[in-house]
Amino acid sequence: MFPFENVIVLDKTSRQPVYRQIAHCLIQAIRSGTLKAGAHLPGSRELAQSLGVHRKTVLAAYEELDRQDWITIIPRKYTAVSDRIPLLKPRPWNQAARPPGYARDLALPFSTIAGNPAVADSVPGILIDDGHPDVRLSPIDHLLKTYRALTARKHRVKNAATGTAQGIQPLRDILAAYLSETRGLSLTADNLLITHGAQMSIYLAANLLLHPSSVMITGRPGYPAARQTFEATGAKVIEVPVDDNGIDTDAIEAVCKKKKVTAVYVIPHHHYPTTVTLSVERRMKLLELSGKYSFAIIEDDYDYDYHYTAAPYLPLASAAHDGQVIYTGSFSKMLDPSLRIGFMVAPANFIRQCTALRQLIDVGGDGYMQYALSILIREGELKRHLKKAKKCYHQRLNFLDTLLKARLGAYLDYTLPGGGMAIWIKLKPGYPVDRLLECPQLRLLGADRGQQAFRFGFAAMNEQELEQAVDLLHSILRTIKAPHKKGAARDRH
Amino acid sequence: MFPFENVIVLDKTSRQPVYRQIAHCLIQAIRSGTLKAGAHLPGSRELAQSLGVHRKTVLAAYEELDRQDWITIIPRKYTAVSDRIPLLKPRPWNQAARPPGYARDLALPFSTIAGNPAVADSVPGILIDDGHPDVRLSPIDHLLKTYRALTARKHRVKNAATGTAQGIQPLRDILAAYLSETRGLSLTADNLLITHGAQMSIYLAANLLLHPSSVMITGRPGYPAARQTFEATGAKVIEVPVDDNGIDTDAIEAVCKKKKVTAVYVIPHHHYPTTVTLSVERRMKLLELSGKYSFAIIEDDYDYDYHYTAAPYLPLASAAHDGQVIYTGSFSKMLDPSLRIGFMVAPANFIRQCTALRQLIDVGGDGYMQYALSILIREGELKRHLKKAKKCYHQRLNFLDTLLKARLGAYLDYTLPGGGMAIWIKLKPGYPVDRLLECPQLRLLGADRGQQAFRFGFAAMNEQELEQAVDLLHSILRTIKAPHKKGAARDRH
Repeated sequence: MFPFENVIVLDKTSRQPVYRQIAHCLIQAIRSGTLKAGAHLPGSRELAQSLGVHRKTVLAAYEELDRQDWITIIPRKYTAVSDRIPLLKPRPWNQAARPPGYARDLALPFSTIAGNPAVADSVPGILIDDGHPDVRLSPIDHLLKTYRALTARKHRVKNAATGTAQGIQPLRDILAAYLSETRGLSLTADNLLITHGAQMSIYLAANLLLHPSSVMITGRPGYPAARQTFEATGAKVIEVPVDDNGIDTDAIEAVCKKKKVTAVYVIPHHHYPTTVTLSVERRMKLLELSGKYSFAIIEDDYDYDYHYTAAPYLPLASAAHDGQVIYTGSFSKMLDPSLRIGFMVAPANFIRQCTALRQLIDVGGDGYMQYALSILIREGELKRHLKKAKKCYHQRLNFLDTLLKARLGAYLDYTLPGGGMAIWIKLKPGYPVDRLLECPQLRLLGADRGQQAFRFGFAAMNEQELEQAVDLLHSILRTIKAPHKKGAARDRH
Repeated sequence: MFPFENVIVLDKTSRQPVYRQIAHCLIQAIRSGTLKAGAHLPGSRELAQSLGVHRKTVLAAYEELDRQDWITIIPRKYTAVSDRIPLLKPRPWNQAARPPGYARDLALPFSTIAGNPAVADSVPGILIDDGHPDVRLSPIDHLLKTYRALTARKHRVKNAATGTAQGIQPLRDILAAYLSETRGLSLTADNLLITHGAQMSIYLAANLLLHPSSVMITGRPGYPAARQTFEATGAKVIEVPVDDNGIDTDAIEAVCKKKKVTAVYVIPHHHYPTTVTLSVERRMKLLELSGKYSFAIIEDDYDYDYHYTAAPYLPLASAAHDGQVIYTGSFSKMLDPSLRIGFMVAPANFIRQCTALRQLIDVGGDGYMQYALSILIREGELKRHLKKAKKCYHQRLNFLDTLLKARLGAYLDYTLPGGGMAIWIKLKPGYPVDRLLECPQLRLLGADRGQQAFRFGFAAMNEQELEQAVDLLHSILRTIKAPHKKGAARDRH
């Protein structure tokens, strides 16, 4: 007699019904070849007794196996494994001891993505981000109220799932008007694609423009996620220097003279990570080069809205360009990093192809959220929020500036940015950024080992939180022996 | 004197402030080379007069241009275009008449995605989808209440933006337990990736597994979006027949004997579009072939939860496989197509790379929504909803079956599916599906010209709506002259 009690292992604590557990164990035994085609199963009464369950439970299990064609029930005669099951050699015992499927690694070849570890869940102690907005100021509750109201309107719900790949028309219409008004862009709703944030715009543009023989130019230091996205297409990425006036356009021209450049990625407003603004001369030079050498410009304008000392420079995309500027922005930076909505502005033929690729990636966006956002913009709520947030962030920037000067002047240098949500802070020689990264109470999202620097995102912290963060930095940095002290200490040996 | 009135064109109806309009027009003139470096601008009083605006408006415009380094203001002397602006030839007049940037097409080369037009926004008349859930039954309001409550908890918000690339830990934990309980999968949270829906899981797996020299197998007829995704990687896609027992595993074996196959895409539960279930024998055969020929199985289990006549077949992923089954599912089908949350189950090493690629695509998901969903599952709300929805959809399926038999039996054939949210309906010869597609009052999402068939998604329609849809189909089909009638008509000529 087949040792059914060994094959059928019941877990009384499981939330799975017992009859399904029995069926499942028998299926596994058939699949593994332990129970072969034609093998008889014990009578329901007998099996029930040996398992210590009610007979009806066994009958229910057999019924399910029958419906799924695993077994054949000949009433009042026998129950057997279906004849149609192909013959399999049972696994030898040593193999059976191997861990089940998902406990192993996938042993087939697949591509790997270079150095881009996912961020862990929990944030112990203090998080210094690289420039996030303060969700507590955000009209997110207002947005969600509108969202709920929309889902309750029965006559609307049918439409919420369609048209979201490019972005629903009402959102593209109001956003076209908003971008024209606030940034001087000349566009229609056909020039707009609603994405899951600025990163998706970069991904889509990169994957349509680049291939393994392409050359892509970015700034150094630069935004790592963009660089990785360009590299993942197989394209050659050439970095040109970024100085106090932004990306070096002479260096771009020098590359163009030697190679066919497909595209240049720039963050003219506040370069990531250094926060510098691209100068007017270089802006014009870049547009000129784009026409002369026929390359696309991917303009990442992630925090256009936060400018404190002057009105923001208009984007490159607002100029009389030849339609070669692919402009990207994000509501994640305006409202909430969790709200995954961004946009791309480009010529309509390119937008159509980006939409087609985006459909392959994830079909589309959340139609209700897109509706709710369009209402938020139409009602002027977005503008009111940005005005309020800008004032608040400006105060926080000044507060942090005062704090840093008073407490940490001995350890670091920085140039106060004219806008944005982060200060680019360079540690003085002898104070390695690794020491900050090693501290278990601190997490820095925008640290750069090569530059011995980090981005201090100040926008999401109130004054008390800024003080705590600076206190923590101070407590780490003051324990580091500065270079001359170290030298002095060495002399004494 | 430079004709400033011609360069500065004010639009009093625009929502952009007048001073910014003035500044913007002057920037455009400088950028286009019309206004050259060093050129003097008129005095503020003079320009204000000629434009018919207040002098302060002109001063504000000049101030902004100065802050952005476009002009130089020498107080009480002159205001001039900055010397640092490079010299540009003004565009000739015929060029100036060309449409501005985004009104043109992008003239640079870029990839195109084969035949995948975005779905239009508005749905006139009646929409017959290809199998959507009924949002009106969904606990979406419950979910949004939780979402709002979460955003209101200030101490939580900092964490909402991190860890969302793979999916936040609480959601992966509860989902691992849920999948184990309902589908017999043996997995941990490390085997799970939370995506923007099943399509993103397919996209990620395809892009890591496939390259231009790979061979990918899918069923014919099959799910077009999956096929397009595989083709977009450059891989060769081989279609094998799907019959009443699902995908033909003998045909898969025949291909494997000739070529190295990288992966097979299957929908074992209810094949798209035909709704057939993969038989037990073929399930075992497919798993055996996967081990023998070392190919991955991408198992799309989009509507596992909706089965009416029997308990669902356990997924391939629940078997004692070698970890080569990449299993995908979606909450869009369980709850709401607008809720863009799906999942992938795979070995942890593959999940890590998928997470890295996903970070490049869109950074991550909506952390609040992931939290809210984890609470919905933990509270048992998802299960209660699915139970209720299953009962309701079963009734709708039977209601539609009765309707179709009574009203449309002369025009079409179908096999009643044992589950799912759609019936695969074949039109009888002489009744082309094009006639349905041409009707302006109807939109069919799941039509297949090659098969002269369409998917009738019944789940999202109540009885009244089903009647209206069948009425509309009837009104179209009865106007078509059936083949023999046509022949009769021809005889009379």
